[in-house]
Amino acid sequence: MAISKKAYKAELHTLQIALVESQARLIAQGRKVLILFEGRDTAGKDGSIKRVTEYMAPRHTRVISLPKPSDRELSQWYFQRYVAHLPAAGEIVIFNRSWYNRAGVEVVMGFSSLEEQSDFIRDVPAFEAMLTEAGIVPIKIWLDISKEEQARRLEARVEDPLKHFKTSPLDGEAQKRWHAYTEARDSMLLRSHSTHAPWLIVATDNKKQARLNVMRHLVERLAVRNLSVDTRAIDPDIAFMFEPEALIDGRMAR
Amino acid sequence: MAISKKAYKAELHTLQIALVESQARLIAQGRKVLILFEGRDTAGKDGSIKRVTEYMAPRHTRVISLPKPSDRELSQWYFQRYVAHLPAAGEIVIFNRSWYNRAGVEVVMGFSSLEEQSDFIRDVPAFEAMLTEAGIVPIKIWLDISKEEQARRLEARVEDPLKHFKTSPLDGEAQKRWHAYTEARDSMLLRSHSTHAPWLIVATDNKKQARLNVMRHLVERLAVRNLSVDTRAIDPDIAFMFEPEALIDGRMAR
Amino acid sequence: MAISKKAYKAELHTLQIALVESQARLIAQGRKVLILFEGRDTAGKDGSIKRVTEYMAPRHTRVISLPKPSDRELSQWYFQRYVAHLPAAGEIVIFNRSWYNRAGVEVVMGFSSLEEQSDFIRDVPAFEAMLTEAGIVPIKIWLDISKEEQARRLEARVEDPLKHFKTSPLDGEAQKRWHAYTEARDSMLLRSHSTHAPWLIVATDNKKQARLNVMRHLVERLAVRNLSVDTRAIDPDIAFMFEPEALIDGRMAR
Amino acid sequence: MAISKKAYKAELHTLQIALVESQARLIAQGRKVLILFEGRDTAGKDGSIKRVTEYMAPRHTRVISLPKPSDRELSQWYFQRYVAHLPAAGEIVIFNRSWYNRAGVEVVMGFSSLEEQSDFIRDVPAFEAMLTEAGIVPIKIWLDISKEEQARRLEARVEDPLKHFKTSPLDGEAQKRWHAYTEARDSMLLRSHSTHAPWLIVATDNKKQARLNVMRHLVERLAVRNLSVDTRAIDPDIAFMFEPEALIDGRMAR
Repeated sequence: MAISKKAYKAELHTLQIALVESQARLIAQGRKVLILFEGRDTAGKDGSIKRVTEYMAPRHTRVISLPKPSDRELSQWYFQRYVAHLPAAGEIVIFNRSWYNRAGVEVVMGFSSLEEQSDFIRDVPAFEAMLTEAGIVPIKIWLDISKEEQARRLEARVEDPLKHFKTSPLDGEAQKRWHAYTEARDSMLLRSHSTHAPWLIVATDNKKQARLNVMRHLVERLAVRNLSVDTRAIDPDIAFMFEPEALIDGRMAR
Repeated sequence: MAISKKAYKAELHTLQIALVESQARLIAQGRKVLILFEGRDTAGKDGSIKRVTEYMAPRHTRVISLPKPSDRELSQWYFQRYVAHLPAAGEIVIFNRSWYNRAGVEVVMGFSSLEEQSDFIRDVPAFEAMLTEAGIVPIKIWLDISKEEQARRLEARVEDPLKHFKTSPLDGEAQKRWHAYTEARDSMLLRSHSTHAPWLIVATDNKKQARLNVMRHLVERLAVRNLSVDTRAIDPDIAFMFEPEALIDGRMAR
Repeated sequence: MAISKKAYKAELHTLQIALVESQARLIAQGRKVLILFEGRDTAGKDGSIKRVTEYMAPRHTRVISLPKPSDRELSQWYFQRYVAHLPAAGEIVIFNRSWYNRAGVEVVMGFSSLEEQSDFIRDVPAFEAMLTEAGIVPIKIWLDISKEEQARRLEARVEDPLKHFKTSPLDGEAQKRWHAYTEARDSMLLRSHSTHAPWLIVATDNKKQARLNVMRHLVERLAVRNLSVDTRAIDPDIAFMFEPEALIDGRMAR
Repeated sequence: MAISKKAYKAELHTLQIALVESQARLIAQGRKVLILFEGRDTAGKDGSIKRVTEYMAPRHTRVISLPKPSDRELSQWYFQRYVAHLPAAGEIVIFNRSWYNRAGVEVVMGFSSLEEQSDFIRDVPAFEAMLTEAGIVPIKIWLDISKEEQARRLEARVEDPLKHFKTSPLDGEAQKRWHAYTEARDSMLLRSHSTHAPWLIVATDNKKQARLNVMRHLVERLAVRNLSVDTRAIDPDIAFMFEPEALIDGRMAR
C-alpha cells in the first residue's frame, strides 16, 4: 500500500490532467457539481481539496468554508446559508465541511438542540433529493482517519508554526470524545446515504493513497468517458461506497 | 357587501393597529412569518401589501418582488434565489409573487419546461414542510378576481398615467388566456394546499372588502390572542381556506 | 401659505405624474440618480419618500434605510456599506438617512470618535465629487423643522398606536439636545454643500407645502424638460438651495 | 542571483512562518490590510499569491479575483464592485488584479472609453488616500517581467495540460502589444504612486527570487517588529519602491 514519492507525483499529475479535461467538458455542458468533504479533525480535508482544485478553472470553481453562523443566521432555516452557494451551470462547488456539521460536531458538543438535530437528519435526504432532481451532481466524501493517526497529526500540528491557524480550541475534544464522534458518524452515514446522494468513504491514514483515490473517484464520477485514466485503479481497501457492513467489518475506524 | 368609505377607513385603522400590536409581539418572541401574495394580474397584490405593511416595523419587515432571473439564476436550483430572502427571527417577509410563478405564468406562457414545472409542483410541498418545521409560519394568499373585473382594471390602468409602471407587455395575455390561467390556478391550488401550508382564497372584485378580509385573516393568524379585533368578522363569502369544492361551487372565478 | 386638502391632492397628483414621466425618460436614458433625505427626527422623511416613490417603477427604484451597523461593518471603510447600494444605469436610489449620520446624530450623541467625524467631513466632498463624475446625479435634501413643531409631532407619535414602530429610545434627546443638533446641522451644511452636490433646504412645519416643494424640486432636477409642470411654482420661503446666510437670516430653524 | 532549490525552500519556510506570526498579531490588533497584485500576463501573480496565502488564517484572508463585470456593474461607479470586498478589522484582502485594470488592459485593448480611463487615473489617488485614512494598509505590488521571459512562459503554458484554464484569448495580445502595455504601465505607475500608497516593483524573471522578495517585503510591511527575519535581505536588484528613474535606468522591462 505504500507508494513512492515519485510514483505518487506521477499519478497525481495524470489525475489532475484528467480533472482539468473533465471540468472543461462540464463547463461546456453546463453541468453542476457539488462536492462535500467531511471527516474528523485532521482527516485531510484541506489537503485533499488543495490537490483537487489546484489546476481547476478559477471562475468555475468555488471552495466554501463557512464561518460560525451569526445569531441572525442561527435563527434562519438551517440550510439557508448553504443554499446561497449552490452551483450554477458549469460550476463545481466544494464544501469544506457542510450542512453535516449538524450531524457531527453539533451532536457531540451539544451546539444545537436535539430537536434541531432530528429535524436535520429527517430533512436532509429530501433536501438532497431536490438538488439532485435539479440537475446538481452531489459527491459526498467522508475521510476516515484512525484514532492513533489523528493523535499523531494533532500533536504534529501543535509543534508546526505553519499550522498555527489550523489549531482550534476544539482540538482537544477530538480524541477525548472519539467514541461520541464515531457514533455520530455511524448514525449520520446510515441515515443520509442514498442511491442518488451516496457517501464515498476514503481511509485517510495513508495521505498519498487517500488523495489519489479521492481523485480517481472524482474523475470517474465527473467524466462522461475519460481515456487517459483507468478508474479501475481505485483501491477498494482505501475508497469504497458506503454500506452499513463497513461500520462493523473493520473497514472503518472505531 | 358594499361598505362605506368611512366604515372602511375606520376598520382598516383598527386592523392596522392590531397588526402593529401583533408584530410587536412577534418580534419579542422571535417568530418568523412568510406571507405569499399570489393572484392574476390586477388582482390587488400591490394594494393589499401596501395596506398590510404601511405601519409595520421597517427593520423587521421586507417585501420581496424578485426581478426576472438572470441566466445564471435560471441554471440554479429553482428555490435558491427565494431562499436568500427567508425570514430570520422576528421578521415578516412578504413575497409579492413567489416561487408559484412556476405553476402560474410559466405554465401558461411556456416560460419553463414541462419537466421543470413538474419538478416544482412535486417538490413544493416537501420544501414548504421543511420551512414549517424550521419554525417559519407560512401564509399563502390567493387573490381571486373575476374576468370582467380584470378587464375593467386593465383598461383603467392603461388610461391612468400614474399606473404607467404597472403595465406590462403580458397584460394582453391575461384576458386572452383566461382559461389557461384558470386551469393553472386550479392545478396549483389542488396540489400545493396542505394542512401546514394552506391557501387562503380572497375574492377581490370588491377591493375594500378584500383588503379588510386579508387583514382580518393576518391578525387571526399572527396574533396569539388579540382583544381589539373580532376575527369572526371574516366574511366567508370573501375569504375562506381553500378546499377543492370551491373550484366548482361558484366561490371562485372561472 | 395654507393649502386646501383638495388643492394639495390635485397638485400632488400632477407632480406624481410628472415624476412618472421623468423616470420613464431616466430609465430610457440610463441615468443614475441618488436622493438623500436628511433632517431631524419627525421632520417628515418617511412621509416625503412615500409620496415621491408611490408610483415609481418598482424595479428601478430603491429606498435604502440601513440598520445599525454590525461590529464588522463598524470596522470597515465608513462609506463601504453605503456604496453597495449606489444606483446603476436607469436606477433611482433614495437614502432615508445616509452617510451624513456621521455628521449628525453621531456628533451629538458621541456614537463615533472625533477623528472618525473629522475624517468623514473632510472626505465627503471628494467622495461625492467622484460619484458625480461617474454620472450619478446627487440630490441632497435637508428637511428643516422648528423646535415647536417637533415637540408637537413627538408627542402625537407617542399617542398614536400606528406610530409604535416610529418611536425610538433617542426620541427624548431630539428636544433636549436641540442646540447641539442645530450646531451639527450648520457645520454639516457649511462643509458639505458644493456646486456639484448642493443641499436643498425644505421648511417642513407645513407638511403639505413641504411635500409639494420637494416634488417640484425633484421634477425640476430630474426632467430634461417637462411641459406639464411649472417648476417656477417652487415656493422660495419653503424650499431653496442652501447658502450660509440662511443659517442666520431666519430661514432655518434655530 | 540563482538560488538552489534547497535554499529557496528553507527561506520560503522561514518567511511563511514570519507571515503567520505577523498575521496572528494583525488579527489581535484588528488591523486591515489590502494587497494588490498587478503585472502583465504570466508575471507570476497566481504563484506569488499561492505562496503568500498558503498558511494564512483562512477566515481572516480573502483572495479576490473578480470576473468580467456584468452590464449592470459596468454602469455603476467603477470602484463599487471592489469596495464590497475591502477588509474589515483583522482581515487581509488580496486582489489578484484590481481596479488598476482600468489603467492597464482596458487602455491597451480599448475596453473602456478614454473618459472613463481619465476619470479613473484622476480619482484613484484620492480614493486610495481615503482608504488609508480609514486605517487600511495598502500594499501595491507590480510584478515586472521581461518580454523574452513572457514569451517563454506563454509558450510553456500552451503545452502544459495543467495550465489549460490559465490560457485566455488575450494571451496573443501580450507580446503583440508589448509596447502599448509598457506605456500603460509607465503612465499608471507615475500617476498612482504616492507616499501613502506606494508601488513595490518586483522583477519576476527569476520566479524564486521574486517570490522570496515579495514575501520579505510583506513581512517588513506587516510586522510591527519581527525578530526571526532580517528584512535587509530584500535584494534591491529584484525588489524596490517605485521611482520614476526606474522606468529608464534599466531596472524595469521595456
